[in-house]
Formats: sequence, structure tokens, C-alpha cells
Amino acid sequence: MSAGVSDRSNRFLRALRREPVDQTPIWLMRQAGRYLPEYRAVRARAGSFMDLCQNPELACEVTVQPVRRYALDAAILFSDILTVPDAMGLGLHFVDGEGPRFERPIRDQHAIRQLRVPDPAVALRYVVDTVGRVRRELGGLCPLIGFSGSPWTLATYMVEGQGGHDFRHVKGLLFNDPEILDTLLATLTQAVTDYLNAQAEAGAQALMIFDTWGGVLSARDFLRFSRDPMARIIEGLSRRREIPVIVFTKGGGAWLPALADTGAEALGVDWTVSLREARAQVGGRVALQGNLDPQALYAPPARLRAEAEAVLRDFGGGAGHVFNLGHGMLPDIAPEQVTTLVEAVQTASRGLA
Amino acid sequence: MSAGVSDRSNRFLRALRREPVDQTPIWLMRQAGRYLPEYRAVRARAGSFMDLCQNPELACEVTVQPVRRYALDAAILFSDILTVPDAMGLGLHFVDGEGPRFERPIRDQHAIRQLRVPDPAVALRYVVDTVGRVRRELGGLCPLIGFSGSPWTLATYMVEGQGGHDFRHVKGLLFNDPEILDTLLATLTQAVTDYLNAQAEAGAQALMIFDTWGGVLSARDFLRFSRDPMARIIEGLSRRREIPVIVFTKGGGAWLPALADTGAEALGVDWTVSLREARAQVGGRVALQGNLDPQALYAPPARLRAEAEAVLRDFGGGAGHVFNLGHGMLPDIAPEQVTTLVEAVQTASRGLA
Repeated sequence: MSAGVSDRSNRFLRALRREPVDQTPIWLMRQAGRYLPEYRAVRARAGSFMDLCQNPELACEVTVQPVRRYALDAAILFSDILTVPDAMGLGLHFVDGEGPRFERPIRDQHAIRQLRVPDPAVALRYVVDTVGRVRRELGGLCPLIGFSGSPWTLATYMVEGQGGHDFRHVKGLLFNDPEILDTLLATLTQAVTDYLNAQAEAGAQALMIFDTWGGVLSARDFLRFSRDPMARIIEGLSRRREIPVIVFTKGGGAWLPALADTGAEALGVDWTVSLREARAQVGGRVALQGNLDPQALYAPPARLRAEAEAVLRDFGGGAGHVFNLGHGMLPDIAPEQVTTLVEAVQTASRGLA
Repeated sequence: MSAGVSDRSNRFLRALRREPVDQTPIWLMRQAGRYLPEYRAVRARAGSFMDLCQNPELACEVTVQPVRRYALDAAILFSDILTVPDAMGLGLHFVDGEGPRFERPIRDQHAIRQLRVPDPAVALRYVVDTVGRVRRELGGLCPLIGFSGSPWTLATYMVEGQGGHDFRHVKGLLFNDPEILDTLLATLTQAVTDYLNAQAEAGAQALMIFDTWGGVLSARDFLRFSRDPMARIIEGLSRRREIPVIVFTKGGGAWLPALADTGAEALGVDWTVSLREARAQVGGRVALQGNLDPQALYAPPARLRAEAEAVLRDFGGGAGHVFNLGHGMLPDIAPEQVTTLVEAVQTASRGLA
């Protein structure tokens, strides 16, 4: 049977294309991270988070760590969603416990018009080098996912100077001068397209666009300011047929048909989404990736297994599901919990396949 | 024609029952608040936020201020969503810029089993007194809305000790000991039912349940831990036929059919929801309340009017819409902006009626 041809080297890519697989592939957002002692050891050697991102040898090492330790079906480049605006000169840095900041946020028309699309071969060379190095290190073990933040998400951080729950400056731009926001988004759309093309050229086998802040927009504004730029990026990918794309709008569960219109092969969904309902809406057009609540990893093993099985049952078996969390791994999860989760997904999904 | 019988005294209540009205009624969440100079003057006299809530004379005054200044179609009791756990002895207070806190959060089985349902005539007497006083002060000008937080939302604050974006303790309870969470929610369901019945008895003409944190749950957990307790409250209201109920789950836009199953007359929706799509899903069963992005009030007047008109067009005219924001008024909005908004809604909706 055709499912027999899938294994760890291609299960994830087949599922993104809604082809049959022997068991549901699994990887975890932020799987390379602080919950792993081997990550903390490398991070301590590297210096800051950005020092680690910009060191291809060490970034490669932490990318590969989780797929060595666990039977995960994909590796994801160790990097940050905000490398593009950093390459534009905004000065990305991280404040402990408070997330990313830009030293030089950008708010006025003049500054927005001055922004230039960075050449990834120069300004983001460290990412391109890391991708190549990871591919050599992985051999055929499992595929590598490249990624970027969405234009709207990048714009949000660039205008606010940080993430958060207010969005006053970027919403102010949206309501007072939507045309200049369009200009900023057009620049970012070109920059992200070039960046993802460079990652694909260097060896990334799937691409993911993280639309972390799309969910703070109204349904109508979301289409113009977040969905449409993502669709233009996908249209601009030079190896469009070969490399599947995943779009993940956090908080976008009510907009799945609009997100499927981007042309992406798969949609990431957070844990507020019913996979059954999502599949009924868009399962004929895209694969679905998700969506266990990351806090379920605090549960005792039996309960964690039951929660993982509930996610699989909610999707309902058959082609087109990539198991993941609904958001990134939390830093204080016990590493053995991930072993429990991976085994639960693999065992239970063989029963459903 | 029947629409001719509606005016400021009953337009809001008619719209909640999906009866024809001459123009779309409007009120604004947190319409009594810091953006109004007359509110700031009273607040300065009262002391802390809780001192103001607990002083029926001053709480009445700030409840009535916005309906004196603007042609709004409803007043909402000036109070907080967390008065019930405060009455249970948890010690509610407010930290400037950081929102509500409980002095004595509650996390263990023993403490949860010790909780008692407060008698609103005693422990929440100040709310009951305020409701009666506001009704006398309003005369027949416009209806008064009473409210509470939902059991899940109250439980979240009670277990965490504060709001936030982590929810580690309450999710820990959910994944480790869901039965004790059910126990806590059952106590809160009875307490909120008694509290809303006391507000109705004192004169509240509509009731709203604010489910501020329902949107952090998975689709499945939402039904058990947030939706079902709200449905039990509505079932337990003693003047069920006379007093319409509005349920508002922030971030619950993907769950509207499940929310309509609570038995509420109306659902509040945040600005991520398309009113057109929401109406197609549940418009035959409930009215819809919302959903302008509160940050649209930062826009220049012409743009603000256009945004308000877009919300009205999105709903599409006819019965069953109450105009509101998708979240509370921000504290630094210029008061004249609210005049612009109210006039825009009233003028444009007469054209659509």
C-alpha cells in the first residue's frame, strides 16, 4: 500500500501534500529551545540569543539537537522571525522575559520610504550558511523547515519597537495613514520573498510563514494588511512547485478559508480551533498542522497521551495532518514529556491511518 | 410601521430580541471610564477604583455620566467583573497599569472546597444598592445593563491571582485535576447566578456575562469549562423570560454556534469577527453586539465614520444588531470622538433600517 513508502525522511512532506503516510508526522514549534539541557549548554557558550542565531556552527547544532533526541519528523531552522528587519538596520535584541525589541523603531513616512530590501546573500548570510550546514548535518534523516515572520507581524514589531498587547502605534498608522502602511508592507513582502527564496536555494525543504500578530486585526483589515502580503510572497517563491508552504496565523481560526486562498499547502492552527471543523471547511484544499495546547505538556503522562489522542481523533485520521503544538514549546517542560508525546502520536496514529 | 415604536428607552432591548428598530442602538463597553473628565473628577474624590465601585452614590454618578453626555441607548452598571470572588474573600485590588490582582489566590483542593457562595444581599450589597439608585436616576431615559464575569474567567483570576498571558496555574489545574476545576466552576456558577438574579431583582433590564478569558481554551475544553457553566447560569435566572442576556467570549469568534446554545439572546463579538459571517451562522437564533476595533477611535473623524459605517454594512441592516466596540474604551480617547461615532452610527443606520 502507498502508505508503506513513508518514513521519517518524507512523512512530513507527504502529509503537507495530503498524500498517505504510515503514521501522523510530528514536529513541535520551538522544539530547539531552553527546555533541552543540550540547548542551554550551547546557548551558554554562544552568548546572547542573537549571537547564537548568527553563529552557523552553533545554530546548526541546536537545530539538529531535537531530531537527534526524539523521533521527530522535521527539523526547523534555529533562528528568529525578526531577522529581516534586523537586516534592514533596526537593531534586534532580546530583553530577558520580555521578548524581542528593536533599538530603532520606525514610525514616520520618511523612514518607511527610506527602507531598502536587504540582499539575503549579504545581510542574512548567516541564515543561508546555517541552512546549508544543517542540510549536510541531517543527511537524509528528516526534512528542514525554513521560515520568516509575515510582513504584518514584522511591521508590527518594527513600528511598536516590541511585541505586546496594545499595538497603538501600528494601529494608529493603519487608521491614520493606511497607504504608508501598504508601502511598508510592500517592502517587507519583497524582503521576505527574497529571504525565503534564499533559504530554499540553500536547501530548506518546506517554508513556514509565522503570522504571530495577524489575529489582532479586524476580519476586513486582516485580508488587506496580512493575508494579501502572504499570498504575494507565496506567488513570488521561485521553486513554488517543489517546496510546500505552511501559513500560521495565531488567532486566525475564524479565517481559514481566507488563509487557504493564499495558495499555501498547509495551515497551522492554534488550539482554539476544532480540527474537525477546520477540516470540514478547508481540508479539501490544504493540510492542517497543529494543535495541542502547549500547556498540556505539564500534565501527567497518561493525561498527556489522552490529550494527544484527542487531537488525532478530532482530525479524524487519513491524509493531511501534521501534529504540532498550537504555539511554541514552553521553556520549563520536562524533556521526557516530549518523548511521551511523540510516542503517543506515533502509536495512536498508526491505529487511525 | 413597527420600527416607529422604538426610541432611546427601548431600542436596545428591542434589538436584543431581534425586533425592528428605527436605528441601530449603540452603547460602548467601558463607556464609563477614564477618557471622560467628569469620571476622572469623581474618581479623584472616591479614592481607589474599588472605593468607587463600593460607593453606590458615586458609582451611580459615573454610570449615568456617559448617557447624559452622549445619545447612547444603554447604561451599564459601573462595577468590575471580579466582584464575586472579592465577596468570597480573595481581596481584589488594582495595580496601576497592570490590572486586577487578588491578595489571596486559591490553588489547592482544600481551599477550593472551602469556598462558599456569597449572599449578594450581604456581601455584594453595594452593587444591589447601586443598581437601584441608577434605575431611579435614569428614570425612563434608557435601560440599565447588569453584569458579571463568567465562571471560567473568575476562576482564571482566582487561581492565577491576576490576569495575563500565561495561565500556567489554572491550566495546570485543568490538565492535572479537572474534577477540582469543575468543583470550583460549580461554586462560581451558583454564585454568579445568585448575583445576576440580585441585579435583576434590583432593576437591571439586561444582563451581560463577560467571558474575557474563554478564548485561551481549546475548542473542546471551552465547552466544558466555560460554555456549559454560562449555559447553567442562564438556565438559573429567575426572570428568564423578561430579561435578555448577552454572552461575550473574547476570542470566541470561531465558536458562535456553541455560544448560541447557551440560550443567550445576544452574543458579543470582537473585531476579528465578520458580522456578515457571524449572522449567517447564528443570526436566526441570537442578536449580535459589536464590533468596532476600539483603536479606530484614534482615527480622524472622517475615517472613524467610515469605519463605523463598514461595521453597519458588514451586519447588513435589519433587526438584531447592537453597535458596540469589540473591546473596552481606551483611556486616552478624546471625548469628542465618541460624539462622532454615535452620530455616525445613528445617521448611517437609519439609512439601512
